Amino acid sequence: MAETATTHPLLDKHRETLDTAAQALRDRSYYSRYPESPSPRIYGENAPGDGQSAHEATLNQDFSALADQPTTGEVVGSEVSPYGPTLGVRYLQLDVPAAIEAAHAALPAWRDAGAEVRAAVLTEVVDRINKRSHEMAHAVMHTSGQPFVMSFQAGGPHAQDRALEAIVAALEEQRRVPASVIWEKPAKGEPIRMQKDYRQIPRGIALVIGCNTFPTWNAYPGIFASLATGNPVIIKPHPRAVLPLALTTAIAREVFAEAGFDRALLQLAAEDDGGTLAKDLALDPAIKIIDYTGGTSFGHWLETEAAALGKLVYTEKAGLNTVVVDSTDDLRGMLGNLAFSFSLYSGQMCTAPQNVYVPATGVDTDEGHVSADQFARRLGEAISTFNADDARAVEILGATVNEGVRERATDIAGLASRVGGQVVLDSRAVTHPAYPDAVVRTPALIGVGADNDAAYSQECFGPVAFIITTADTEESLRIFADTVREHGGMTAAVYSTDEEILDGAREAAAEAGVGLSENLTGQIFVNQTAAFSDFHGTGANPAANAAYADAAFVAGRFRVITSRRHI
Amino acid sequence: MAETATTHPLLDKHRETLDTAAQALRDRSYYSRYPESPSPRIYGENAPGDGQSAHEATLNQDFSALADQPTTGEVVGSEVSPYGPTLGVRYLQLDVPAAIEAAHAALPAWRDAGAEVRAAVLTEVVDRINKRSHEMAHAVMHTSGQPFVMSFQAGGPHAQDRALEAIVAALEEQRRVPASVIWEKPAKGEPIRMQKDYRQIPRGIALVIGCNTFPTWNAYPGIFASLATGNPVIIKPHPRAVLPLALTTAIAREVFAEAGFDRALLQLAAEDDGGTLAKDLALDPAIKIIDYTGGTSFGHWLETEAAALGKLVYTEKAGLNTVVVDSTDDLRGMLGNLAFSFSLYSGQMCTAPQNVYVPATGVDTDEGHVSADQFARRLGEAISTFNADDARAVEILGATVNEGVRERATDIAGLASRVGGQVVLDSRAVTHPAYPDAVVRTPALIGVGADNDAAYSQECFGPVAFIITTADTEESLRIFADTVREHGGMTAAVYSTDEEILDGAREAAAEAGVGLSENLTGQIFVNQTAAFSDFHGTGANPAANAAYADAAFVAGRFRVITSRRHI
Repeated sequence: MAETATTHPLLDKHRETLDTAAQALRDRSYYSRYPESPSPRIYGENAPGDGQSAHEATLNQDFSALADQPTTGEVVGSEVSPYGPTLGVRYLQLDVPAAIEAAHAALPAWRDAGAEVRAAVLTEVVDRINKRSHEMAHAVMHTSGQPFVMSFQAGGPHAQDRALEAIVAALEEQRRVPASVIWEKPAKGEPIRMQKDYRQIPRGIALVIGCNTFPTWNAYPGIFASLATGNPVIIKPHPRAVLPLALTTAIAREVFAEAGFDRALLQLAAEDDGGTLAKDLALDPAIKIIDYTGGTSFGHWLETEAAALGKLVYTEKAGLNTVVVDSTDDLRGMLGNLAFSFSLYSGQMCTAPQNVYVPATGVDTDEGHVSADQFARRLGEAISTFNADDARAVEILGATVNEGVRERATDIAGLASRVGGQVVLDSRAVTHPAYPDAVVRTPALIGVGADNDAAYSQECFGPVAFIITTADTEESLRIFADTVREHGGMTAAVYSTDEEILDGAREAAAEAGVGLSENLTGQIFVNQTAAFSDFHGTGANPAANAAYADAAFVAGRFRVITSRRHI
Repeated sequence: MAETATTHPLLDKHRETLDTAAQALRDRSYYSRYPESPSPRIYGENAPGDGQSAHEATLNQDFSALADQPTTGEVVGSEVSPYGPTLGVRYLQLDVPAAIEAAHAALPAWRDAGAEVRAAVLTEVVDRINKRSHEMAHAVMHTSGQPFVMSFQAGGPHAQDRALEAIVAALEEQRRVPASVIWEKPAKGEPIRMQKDYRQIPRGIALVIGCNTFPTWNAYPGIFASLATGNPVIIKPHPRAVLPLALTTAIAREVFAEAGFDRALLQLAAEDDGGTLAKDLALDPAIKIIDYTGGTSFGHWLETEAAALGKLVYTEKAGLNTVVVDSTDDLRGMLGNLAFSFSLYSGQMCTAPQNVYVPATGVDTDEGHVSADQFARRLGEAISTFNADDARAVEILGATVNEGVRERATDIAGLASRVGGQVVLDSRAVTHPAYPDAVVRTPALIGVGADNDAAYSQECFGPVAFIITTADTEESLRIFADTVREHGGMTAAVYSTDEEILDGAREAAAEAGVGLSENLTGQIFVNQTAAFSDFHGTGANPAANAAYADAAFVAGRFRVITSRRHI
């Protein structure tokens, strides 16, 4: 039997980090290894400039850091920044059969290294990615359209924290099965004694299908969970968001080689817009695990067709994110918090709120009773005020990521008319001082009645939210639970000063299978989740069949093979 | 928010048991709560007689203990003992829509009771089942055809231990997520503080589809894992093995009612032979989890069609169980051990060995070198000797469970001729002294060459095994790994005195994704696994997509819903 490595230089280096992270995961307490501030005081005086230079040096070039991947010889690359410029990065097309062969060849040594060594090596990978967070921020910004600071945070440290969370979640799970046990069964005379060895084996090769809006944040949990459990990974990035995952892959391969493993543990399969590689790879018999973030239709195809082939499929698709407004003791705080949540990345987060339920009887607040109409107007004003200054607004709004979003945002009146609603707040075009070609839009609000469920029971991706007038909060909660249970939802929020209403909201959230944020008025937003503490998704409603990163997200990625013998 | 119950009379009663069992599961050490000996010294002087009387009292009667289930008014029941007698037990047909409604109504209180209370109540259920182990043994014997002592052990205490294992596996998994945490993120000035509550919710209603041969042993892990994670369960027993699960259901419902919960947490949906209830229930949108043991074809249907509907599907189907013979220092012990494994329940265990690979160059033993032919003859003799005495043999062989098995067993010459093999040992008809109508057969051996893979690459359920002559042990291991990887396998064994060969066998087993027993010559048999220590199945080859009872078997059965708020 192959011996499990018990010594590796990286084990000592990362033991403390892994211990601390594992404890945080057990407690679900606050923990972050990677500072979220892009400040030069933290990342080094030259980090911002170096990061920008490094990014610029990749533009209009062959991406040579992955030149050692098996290739067909063809070149792909069709990335255009949502801020305007064409990236012009050229990637060698992966030779898929050769890549699968290479991944299979890389597997045994990685499997036999054992969970502890894998976790240490992968922590080194994440640390190394962290050092290039400024460069990564530019790559994320110019593929997703996120504003710079968000690109840095969500694409850098927050994604890195989620990666580390996946690593320790997988490590903890593997630690639960001992390597060996002496089993002693009482018997007449001498007991029956056996030695049983438990060997953990990976499923095979894993596929991670990236998305356009959060190329690293949404891909890292699957990548690192699969690698940590011994499975080589092939990444199929979104054709318009290749660069962040190309950087990731190149860094990881470098660390693998340095640590004595095969670079083929992580490979990148870039393709041009309109390719079918995700489907082709998903159907390949060599692929045993699939992690996916993206549109509902392809996600559903994976959940049905790929799952039916016996593959493990983890999806995060889309849903109806809800805010139930009942009452508040901090109207300004609430409106400011919501304005930020709607505006951040122009509502292009899978966690951004879309459906706001307000009772027709109005909302009791610290500023007195506010009618439903007044509330809608106040929310519109808060959004307008928040985005009043173009130069500041673009640093929150980012750029619209695709034509679908742009079309919807530029014809709010048409949308409102089609769905039978009224424009409460139109979307405003914002001129980006640095990127005149970027299409930047502020959030719009459309008012509809609760009976018009056709209007608000589908995801309306981008800077559009619905204010839905209900009879009362009880109806709001009922519709919230019903729509999320049926159509899915990644997040939900409630505002109320009434403990009974809050209890009811918790019941409705449990029934809907969605996490709930209550009375957020400060610096925590419904669309953000913290690694090690907040689950992202629940797997309990149609928006996602998995959660970052619970036991179910990692436990199936490896299997245990026992060998037993008398001693 | 519903309060989680923290006190329940059964919590104290079963705390120590759950603690001990949880520790055993962590260590994978020997643990059994339920004594496997049917001795009156353990179960009480009157237990055997009382059990038999209780069993006889159920025959040719309405099964009144489940009369309170919602019913269509129709009566079903077509159980005939493999030992001959018609059971004549009549079950009221379950009204499925009403049962689903009842299960939904039962869910909230069970969910809100919390994991600890559920585990305690379920341990009480298993304890109560244990007290009726003798009655259960008769029910299992006369539905499965197992011999009495095996029916007692596998259908009673061993199944009960597997139930308790599932309960603590689920409990441990749920304990890993804290009920609440204060999350404190450093910030400029005061830290940001939030309370986060984590609420565990079940998936919904679970379906357990029972099998004919191990009605309790194979059903309990799914039943108790689903119940322990909060999911009400509907059991669809095999039409010819209803009684053991009817008893189980009745006992559980009684305990639920006594413990203050709804009886509808467990319901039994019996049907006559030829019914379609398993499929109908599997397709019902209310069913969220399916546990299945049985034939490959329906199992595959569940893995594709039901899984594609987003249901969690855990299957145990069939495979090719392998013995690789290389060399031994205890030929008699080895032959005796194998003879028992082939004979026990006439090879009708999903874990019974079927394919024995022997090198053409023969086998080195403590009795000198034995040619391949001699080895086959010696194994045949060992089986014949082991089963020489009819009255003793029936207590191991049991009765053949269905027509398919009987037909194969009574025409070994025809089978050998069809597959192009030679009869090494024919199956012998054994007359059961107490049940003259029982069809009891000893195991047959058919010899084939390694090139005749068509012969031995399909499951041949019942008392038939193949002795496959290979070029050498290296070829044996290669064929073993290839056939199991492709066709599945529940168990594997190897006999060798050579550490290098044993290493190779462990590698082959890991590659095949099957557990390995090495050099068993005593009282441990390849077809038996011990709860808390041995995984049953691996989920790593086509024979089963799950293992009793690893984290992956329980972790997906519940989800976590967070609610968070500032404090």
